[in-house]
Amino acid sequence: MNSVREPKPDLHELMFGLGRAAREAAAVLARTPADTKTEVLKAAARELRASAKTVLRANAEDVAAAKAQGLTAAMIDRLTLDDKRIEATAAGLELVAALDDPIGQVIAEWRRPNGLTIARVRVPLGVIGIIYESRPNVTADAAALCLKSGNAAILRGGSEAARSNAAIHACLARALVAHGLPAAAVQLVPTQDREAVGILLRDMAGYVDVIVPRGGKGLVARVQQDARVPVMSHLEGICHTYIHAAADVAMARKIVVNAKMRRTGVCGATETILVDRACAATHLQPIVADLIAAGCEIRGDGPTQAADARVHAAVDADWGKEFLDAIAAVRVVDGLDAALEHIRRYGSAHTDAIITDDPAAAERFLNELDSAIVMHNASTQFADGGEFGMGAEIGIATGKIHARGPVGAAELTSYKYQVRGNGQTRPS
Amino acid sequence: MNSVREPKPDLHELMFGLGRAAREAAAVLARTPADTKTEVLKAAARELRASAKTVLRANAEDVAAAKAQGLTAAMIDRLTLDDKRIEATAAGLELVAALDDPIGQVIAEWRRPNGLTIARVRVPLGVIGIIYESRPNVTADAAALCLKSGNAAILRGGSEAARSNAAIHACLARALVAHGLPAAAVQLVPTQDREAVGILLRDMAGYVDVIVPRGGKGLVARVQQDARVPVMSHLEGICHTYIHAAADVAMARKIVVNAKMRRTGVCGATETILVDRACAATHLQPIVADLIAAGCEIRGDGPTQAADARVHAAVDADWGKEFLDAIAAVRVVDGLDAALEHIRRYGSAHTDAIITDDPAAAERFLNELDSAIVMHNASTQFADGGEFGMGAEIGIATGKIHARGPVGAAELTSYKYQVRGNGQTRPS
Repeated sequence: MNSVREPKPDLHELMFGLGRAAREAAAVLARTPADTKTEVLKAAARELRASAKTVLRANAEDVAAAKAQGLTAAMIDRLTLDDKRIEATAAGLELVAALDDPIGQVIAEWRRPNGLTIARVRVPLGVIGIIYESRPNVTADAAALCLKSGNAAILRGGSEAARSNAAIHACLARALVAHGLPAAAVQLVPTQDREAVGILLRDMAGYVDVIVPRGGKGLVARVQQDARVPVMSHLEGICHTYIHAAADVAMARKIVVNAKMRRTGVCGATETILVDRACAATHLQPIVADLIAAGCEIRGDGPTQAADARVHAAVDADWGKEFLDAIAAVRVVDGLDAALEHIRRYGSAHTDAIITDDPAAAERFLNELDSAIVMHNASTQFADGGEFGMGAEIGIATGKIHARGPVGAAELTSYKYQVRGNGQTRPS
Repeated sequence: MNSVREPKPDLHELMFGLGRAAREAAAVLARTPADTKTEVLKAAARELRASAKTVLRANAEDVAAAKAQGLTAAMIDRLTLDDKRIEATAAGLELVAALDDPIGQVIAEWRRPNGLTIARVRVPLGVIGIIYESRPNVTADAAALCLKSGNAAILRGGSEAARSNAAIHACLARALVAHGLPAAAVQLVPTQDREAVGILLRDMAGYVDVIVPRGGKGLVARVQQDARVPVMSHLEGICHTYIHAAADVAMARKIVVNAKMRRTGVCGATETILVDRACAATHLQPIVADLIAAGCEIRGDGPTQAADARVHAAVDADWGKEFLDAIAAVRVVDGLDAALEHIRRYGSAHTDAIITDDPAAAERFLNELDSAIVMHNASTQFADGGEFGMGAEIGIATGKIHARGPVGAAELTSYKYQVRGNGQTRPS
């Protein structure tokens, strides 16, 4: 169906219209005082609570249609709203409202010998396009971070959540307008035509400064492939926890169970556990037993199978696999260098941890491994903007350009240089 | 000739080989101590001075071939090396050697209530591709900044400078190898096949983290159009100097002549001068007379023509034109808002300046104008990494993603988070 691409002039006009309106709104937002943005976010939370019934009604229609279309139970769970989820979304808006405003912050300032002072000052990026699936709360979460950072947002949610997203978006729009800001500060693409995404990715470089995909691997890969606009995204979280020779066994057991099993579907969940051969005799069996007791399937190499009869044989494809489920790959490695080599080969440079009481080994791991987040004696499940103290995140970036790791309001900014002089001219 | 693109398996293999070698070298560079990088850069400067005759001989062949091909005098000037230019290039290597090493710098560090400490630490980007024209000194300048920031470089210079670039590159390679670093830390694409650039831009996203084009508008536009890899570049420097109603006339005259005429071919040269109607009666005529006396052609609006009979009539295309020559467009505007509107409409968000003794007007200009560099009472010709105190620059970025303004060694880095705990697990 996508192989023949008919030009759709009306669709282009519609999307370009959104782009123009977003650019104009972005110029207003860039000059909007911090207090106004805070008030809009608080008002949006009130609007959402007051409109809970309307939002739930719209959501019920989405869910009914999704069931009729035979969507999976997991997709329907992500789609479904209830009072608790609406309250959590409203509370999320208030959390972002309470964050420090990044815009106008002086990141650095210095004086040159000729008397010029140079200040690097945070400014918004401009217009952010967000493409997401299923979860309607992303409509509010993503819009809130964009607004906080002075950016206009163009939101394109999944068609299965269209009614829910529209109902949530209406709350945001009312809050914006009530505070004298343009409704176009947060726009929802009003069509489910899939080609609208193509136009956003390929043809709107003049209107959109960055695209953030939020969703499964298929969506992110498509966006990375097609976009002619910078993309901030992570494709996979293939996280490792490495039990070093000098690991405290009690700490290792506690952290591994949390890193793997606290939530298995998040990108910071550990997928592979590496156990140093030097401590395998004492550490491997209890770690495996704990995981199995917690309901985890283990796919292990020879030594791991020898440690516990319930361990399945790992195949090559299990190393570097993002299970996102109660499954872990477990391997015994010969020392720190072998662990680093394994993680470099199979990891996705998202989050990796070492458990050890040896500070030198920990520092080597933290310095030599080039993942977005490297951890010592902590659970990889801390890979989260909220846990980092950023208040909220729009995602975790695994690329190295612009932002890396949790992307909060400050990461949705750029900067400019303000140069103040008193008549300086440049010598030849 | 480019319309039919035959697959060239050998060329792909060649380029991918450079990519693989660059990735391996980048892993080594990321762990190379600051002192070693400093010593390599100093040694490269010594090698270049010692090899001056060889480099000049290679350059003479390039220049002879360029003349035979009928290249313009300006291109031949950019291509030509002499003892002074080689000494300047060697001194540039030493300047970068003396800069602070950005890698490993702790950008920020904080402690969470649960005891986790989080540090944001500078790391190299990885592999940087640099595509440039004519000037052979870019071979040394660009390589030096990449090396300082721990990045491997893949350099693709213009075919007209191939022999000169190879001779300079040989000096860098000797310095690297003499200090135990891989020669592949700085590679020069060894073919002049234009399709090699296409492969670098389109097919090597797995090997190259960012592309920096250095050259004319045509080159930069092609790179921006074709690249499937992030690009750091500026397309045009359409810089404005605005003479506000409260400008001191002596300061305005001094700054305008410098901003326009110090060097007309640099991206920070002022192209359009806006004079506030409120001071036009006193300021316009002397500014225009100064510029004409300095050899500048003026293309002005009605009031500017009325001020001096030697002023040519400006046409619409003169607003927003990057003359890169001794030509200026001059216009009278009705106040600060009209000046901002003109600059937003016709500028390129590179560098813009206001001349005024009114601090409130200056702050409005600095805050409301979203150019990479905004200046008060200073010449736009200060738009330069060296003048900003960065020691050197690989270019000035006008995009908002990653780096903006002068791109020095620190701007060629990313960061990672180092998280240090003592057994923390994440609550449900």
